[in-house]
Order: sequence, then C-alpha cells, then structure tokens
Amino acid sequence: MNQPVRAIAEAARRASRALATCSAEQRDTAIRAAAQLIEQQHFQLLQTNRQDLDAAHRLLDSGEITSATFERLRLTDKKLAEMIHSMLAVADLPDPVGRVLQRTELDRGLVLDKVTCPLGVLAVIFEARPDAVTQISALALKSANAVILKAGREVERTAAALVEIIAQSLAQNGLPKDAVSMMTGRESVQQLLGMADLVDMVIPRGSKQLVEYIQANTRIPVLGHAEGICHIYVDAAADMEMALSLIDDAKTDYPAACNAAETVLVHQAIADEFLPRMAERLQGKQVKLRGCERTRAILSNHPVEAVSEGEWRHEYSDLVLAVRMVNSIDEAIDHIHMFGSSHTETIVTDDPAAAGRFLNAVDAAGVFHNASTRFADGFRYGFGAEVGISTSKLHARGPVGVEGLTTYKYVLRGSGQLARDYQGPKAKAFTHRPLEHE
Amino acid sequence: MNQPVRAIAEAARRASRALATCSAEQRDTAIRAAAQLIEQQHFQLLQTNRQDLDAAHRLLDSGEITSATFERLRLTDKKLAEMIHSMLAVADLPDPVGRVLQRTELDRGLVLDKVTCPLGVLAVIFEARPDAVTQISALALKSANAVILKAGREVERTAAALVEIIAQSLAQNGLPKDAVSMMTGRESVQQLLGMADLVDMVIPRGSKQLVEYIQANTRIPVLGHAEGICHIYVDAAADMEMALSLIDDAKTDYPAACNAAETVLVHQAIADEFLPRMAERLQGKQVKLRGCERTRAILSNHPVEAVSEGEWRHEYSDLVLAVRMVNSIDEAIDHIHMFGSSHTETIVTDDPAAAGRFLNAVDAAGVFHNASTRFADGFRYGFGAEVGISTSKLHARGPVGVEGLTTYKYVLRGSGQLARDYQGPKAKAFTHRPLEHE
Repeated sequence: MNQPVRAIAEAARRASRALATCSAEQRDTAIRAAAQLIEQQHFQLLQTNRQDLDAAHRLLDSGEITSATFERLRLTDKKLAEMIHSMLAVADLPDPVGRVLQRTELDRGLVLDKVTCPLGVLAVIFEARPDAVTQISALALKSANAVILKAGREVERTAAALVEIIAQSLAQNGLPKDAVSMMTGRESVQQLLGMADLVDMVIPRGSKQLVEYIQANTRIPVLGHAEGICHIYVDAAADMEMALSLIDDAKTDYPAACNAAETVLVHQAIADEFLPRMAERLQGKQVKLRGCERTRAILSNHPVEAVSEGEWRHEYSDLVLAVRMVNSIDEAIDHIHMFGSSHTETIVTDDPAAAGRFLNAVDAAGVFHNASTRFADGFRYGFGAEVGISTSKLHARGPVGVEGLTTYKYVLRGSGQLARDYQGPKAKAFTHRPLEHE
Repeated sequence: MNQPVRAIAEAARRASRALATCSAEQRDTAIRAAAQLIEQQHFQLLQTNRQDLDAAHRLLDSGEITSATFERLRLTDKKLAEMIHSMLAVADLPDPVGRVLQRTELDRGLVLDKVTCPLGVLAVIFEARPDAVTQISALALKSANAVILKAGREVERTAAALVEIIAQSLAQNGLPKDAVSMMTGRESVQQLLGMADLVDMVIPRGSKQLVEYIQANTRIPVLGHAEGICHIYVDAAADMEMALSLIDDAKTDYPAACNAAETVLVHQAIADEFLPRMAERLQGKQVKLRGCERTRAILSNHPVEAVSEGEWRHEYSDLVLAVRMVNSIDEAIDHIHMFGSSHTETIVTDDPAAAGRFLNAVDAAGVFHNASTRFADGFRYGFGAEVGISTSKLHARGPVGVEGLTTYKYVLRGSGQLARDYQGPKAKAFTHRPLEHE
C-alpha cells in the first residue's frame, strides 16, 4: 500500500502491455471471477466497511462530512448485489477492443485497417462510493486497460479490500494483478497527475471542486465534466402542457444530477400565460424560483427572487430554478452559449423550423427537442454501461460508454511495398477501395 | 492587423457560430471563390512574396535562416498552381459535418442521433510555408470551423495577402470574414494559448521545438506530433531482400519526413548474414550507420559509430540510421515502447504468428507488416487531405483527415417524454433499437 506512486504507475504500464494482448475471454472471465469472489466474501466486506463507517461517524459528528456522504459510504446487501450485477453486465458487453472500424485496400496486397485498442493506463480519482471501485475496474478490464484507483480516505479500507479481491481474480486467471491497483493520500494524486508518460487518461468522479482541481493540474487528458448547467427553452410555439411536464421532470426528478435543468428560458410571446402556470406547477413541487426582472414582473404574486448576472452560470443542484424571458430563439441560444456548460440543452416547440434551428445552432454535448434533459445518460442512451459524461469536445463527448476507454491504431499489411513506387512520373496508382469487414 | 488577440479570438468564436449553421454549399463555394481569386491576383501575390524574400535574404546572409527555409518561403507559379489545386480538392471532399454516425430508437417517438459537428475555433501556428495558409483555411472552412492563423514572421506579408483574399471570398459569399483571421508576433501566441474558453484546438506545424513549446504551454488540446522515431524490426523469419528494400525506402526516400525510419532492430538469428548485406546496400545510398556493440562487432569492416543509450531516442531526420541487434521479438517490442514516439512501427517477417504478435502488442499510431513506414500519410491512406499526424491517443491518432476537425453531438428528438417514466417499479422499457440512417 505504501509503494511509491511512480512504481505503482510503472507496474500498471507493464500490466497494460500484457492486457493489450490477452483475449477478451480471459478478461471477461476475470471480471466474472471477481464478482463471484465478492459474493463469497460478502461478510468480510461488510465487516471491513464497518471500520470505514466507524471512522466516518466521527467525521459526521464533527461536521466534516454530510449525512449524504455517510450514506454513500455504507455497503449493504442490496448495494453488494447491485455491484455484482453490474460487473456481470459489463462482462457481458461486446468486446470493445480489436474492432475493425474501417478497412481500405490501398493497392493490391496492401490493406489498411483502423482497429480499436485500449488506451493503456487509466487513473480514476473518486470520493466516497465503494461501488465506484467495482464498476470502474470492470470497465477498465473490459476495455483491456490497467487502472490506478485513488479512493476518498473515508472509504479507503473498503476500497482496498475490493481491489485485493479483484487483483486475486486477475492472478488466478493468468492476468497481471497490477492491472488494478490503488494508491492513497492527496500527495499521491499530485504526483500521479505529473506522470503523462505513464498515465493515458484521468477520470475524476466527484465534486465540481475535485474535477476542476484535476483539470487545472495535469497535462494528461481528463474525461469528465465539472458541472451541468442545462437549459430548457420554451419556444413561442411550445405545447405548454408538455413544457410544464418536461420542466417538472428535468428539475424535480433528481435535482442533484448533472443533467437536471438549472434555467428555463421563456419566449416573450407566451410568457404572460406560461409563467404563472409554471409557477403554480413548481410551487406544488417545492421548487424555489429565481427570475429576471420581466419574469418577476409577471410573477409579482409569487415569491421570486432576483437573479444576479453571474448567477445564470450557477449550478443549483437543488430544488431551485432560474427563469429568464427572451425576445427570440436567437437570444435563447446566445444565453445558452454565454452561461451554459455545453452539457444538455432542450427546446420545447411544435415548430419544426425552430427545432431545427436550435438543434443545429446550439453547441453542446446534447441538444434535445421535446424531451427531458434527464435522458442525457449512458444507460438511457443504450450504452450498457457509463464511464462518465464528458463536456469536452475532443475524444468522447456526452455520456461515454466503454468504447470511450479505447483509441485506435492503423494496421497496414503489405507484401514489401515501397512508398517511392507510388510517386513521381511513373507512379503506381493507389486503389483506395473500401473493403467489407466484420 | 494590430487588433488585440482576445478581440480576434472573440470575433473568430462569433464567426464559428455562423459557420456552424450555414450550408456545405456555401462553404464550398467560398473555398472555390478564394482559389479563383488567388489565380486572378497571381502577380500581386508574387510581388508581395518578393518583399518577404528580400527581407529573408538578409536573414539568410546573417545565418538566421537556412537555405531550405528560404526556399520554402518562395512562392512560384508552380506552388500557386498546387495551392489552388489542393483548395479545389478540399472543396470537392464530402461534407464532414452533419453526418449521422449512429441512430437509435430509445422508445417509440424518441430517437437519438449521434451527429458530426465542427469543433469551433482552431488556432494554427506554423513557420515558413505560404501554402499552409490556403491548405489550412480550406480544411477549416470545409469542416465549418473558424481558424486563427499565426505565420512565421518571414512569411507574414505573403500570409496576410492570402488571408485577405480568403476573407474577401467569405464576405462575398455571405459568410463572416472573421472565420479566417491572422495574428502576428510571438506574444500573441502566448496570449492565445491561454484562451481555452475561445479556442478549441491548436495545430502546430513546424519544428519539434515549436510543437513541444506549444504542448507545454497550453491547456487547449493540441493536434500534432513533436517527432517521429520510427523503427523497422527485421524478424528471424524475414525475407531479407524485402527487408533491404523496405529499409532503403523508409530511410532514403525522404529522410527529413517524420515517417522516415530512424532505427532498425535485427533479430540475432539472421544478424550475421543480414547486417553486412544491409551495410553494403545503405553505403551505396550514403547512409551513415550507428550501431550497438554487437552490430559493430559484425560490421567491423564498416565505419559504424557507437550509439549512446540516449541516442536511441534521437530523430536524425537525415541519412543516418541506428542499428540494434535483439535476442527476440519481445526485446524488439520493448525497445520500441522504451524509445519510440508511437508514430509508425514496421515488422518484416514471413512468419504470420510473429506478425500477429507485433501488430497486436505494439502501441503506436501505425503498426505495419512488410510495408514501408513512409506509407503513414493521410494522402496514401486515402483521406483526400491531411490535417496532420497525431501521436496522441485521444481524439484522432495517426494521419488525420478533415474529420479530425469535427466532434459530434447527440441530438434527441422526442414528443414530450419524461425520464421519470422509465424508472421505478412501473417503468416503461427502452427499446434501444438501432435504426438505419444515411
């Protein structure tokens, strides 16, 4: 446990080389074996978790952690069953590695394949959830990546026990146990973030502060998002009843989620009728409203606080909703580009032209028409498992499935071809013929 | 020209919003109009270039630039014709934007599309080539991105004249002229590298020093490669005649290219016979050899300098080749992982198992069997145009075509669906049915 960080990362790199060439069956078998071992060691795991909980009790009493965090730490029979279930589901996914994405004949006997392959070494830094250990390890092994885990200190004992079980399953199935390892301490994170030569991707799972700290302190690519400031734009041609349901769902279904709505933009043409109906509906759901001046004027009979300019950029993660009246769809789009986080944006309208304009012009990972922002999620999108949600534009954007943990390489198979024969006055011609594959 | 950098970048961002929603025809027309205008203003351009050349003459005399750089600065009738030809070729490529990569029915009336879209704003920093201006601008407009160009100061007048022509063609075709802009001065680069909020990708085109400086000084994603240290591994089961031709091609066809070979690794089983034949062949081509101790022992009749440990990591970019004897294919693979730059690696062998092992285990953008490393190139791969070659694993890897300048977004079209209806005991089921598209 107290190995130097560099030694852990080098061992992970070596393990990743071995993983890259083993079969999908071997990796899937190891994931299933780990799930089985967790089931068998069920009581010991709950006992170990008890120690984390005892220590966390003191943090709870002193106010260092919230009761929500405390609950996330707790392992239960139900949580263990879910962890096992989701590991088995990951093992059942199709192999994301070695897929031929494209096959081109460059010339006779010279064929180029674009083939998926693992990234190499992942570093995953998370906070209190013990289930993150099993889910992330399963996803990493599924995609033939080694992974270094850094758990929040409140959950360290439980995480270490789970990592030990997974490492054991790897070793028993002929795979390098260093493919899943763990490190502790804040300084370790700092050191690891400097090892761009050994780590291919960092995945932070936790608070906005954690994600922003990591983004600001590493040159290693980061997969994730610091915040989700999602908007619902209610167009002049909106079906108001539909708009009310969508806003209700997007705000109240799970307010702490990153895909919950934070701001509603309402076209002025319908504001007089729509805003009072919306205020009624949301008051019944204990949602507090904040509004621009024009919104507050219309809702003068309702308790609506003023929104300060910077607040449009705030993620409430709570039963609070900001409301702004806009003069046009373009003003709504500008507001979204100015204050949004490029996560998920919805238009509610029955006008196909307005919908087309919004879906085309808005620059975000998800652009929705007449659907709740809450659908922005890997499981709902049908990915089987979710690595995270990315608001960066490069590599993977939006909800990311296991293929977000892969890259590709070009495999060229020839029979002695020389590049110089394809240039100059007597150049041989390339055929560049797409070939069937898979 | 002397606008503050932030104002240039903000104007580029605004222009990128407009580009994102205009039609492919509009963008193609603007590219073709610019090509035509360059043809028409042919004499003025050569005159402007004359001024750059006059200034460069002094730099040449004082040894500040090499004669190779001087030649790259020079615009000629032939170069102008090539520039125009390649702009028209880019205009003729299929539209990389708005392509549906995947379509999934989540439920009846709820359809998810994964659609390609532009990145937004590109910053391209290059050195002496005037043809970079037209090629990059055409690629950017093709993919609906705005681009900010920073040319080497030796070519500033020529670059500014070309940018002016392109901006004029944009304006004449109803597109924002700020979609292609230019900035000058080293401090501008430094400032721009800090604007991650306004610039989506930086593409450095130039020396290893330039690329490394940029990689080290920005949080904006960088597309490119600092160096190409490509290996050819001659296996025990290699066809020696083929190996000799491939090494000759990969080393001597264009030694300054990033896809030229720098190191040959030879299996010990054939070294006694192969190395003297290789030395003969390459001596006839003026290639200087450097070798490990065992190589030098076999080639004791040839002038082979010793290679120091760090030198295996050196890109000669010249008629110099490092040679190392290895005991096994695994030692060759380890050498490549230790000293390579993940660019392009070749195995020469008639043994399918050895080829399979090499192609599978080697972690690089290109892994080749019985083909010259020089094939690692966007045109040879059939991409029509090349944005650059990337040795990073995320986003685009290897030679990058115009689709490397795009990202994607998820477009969800519904009819009022709520996320909460798909969870809990009475949950509606997702269909997650792949649909035909395009």
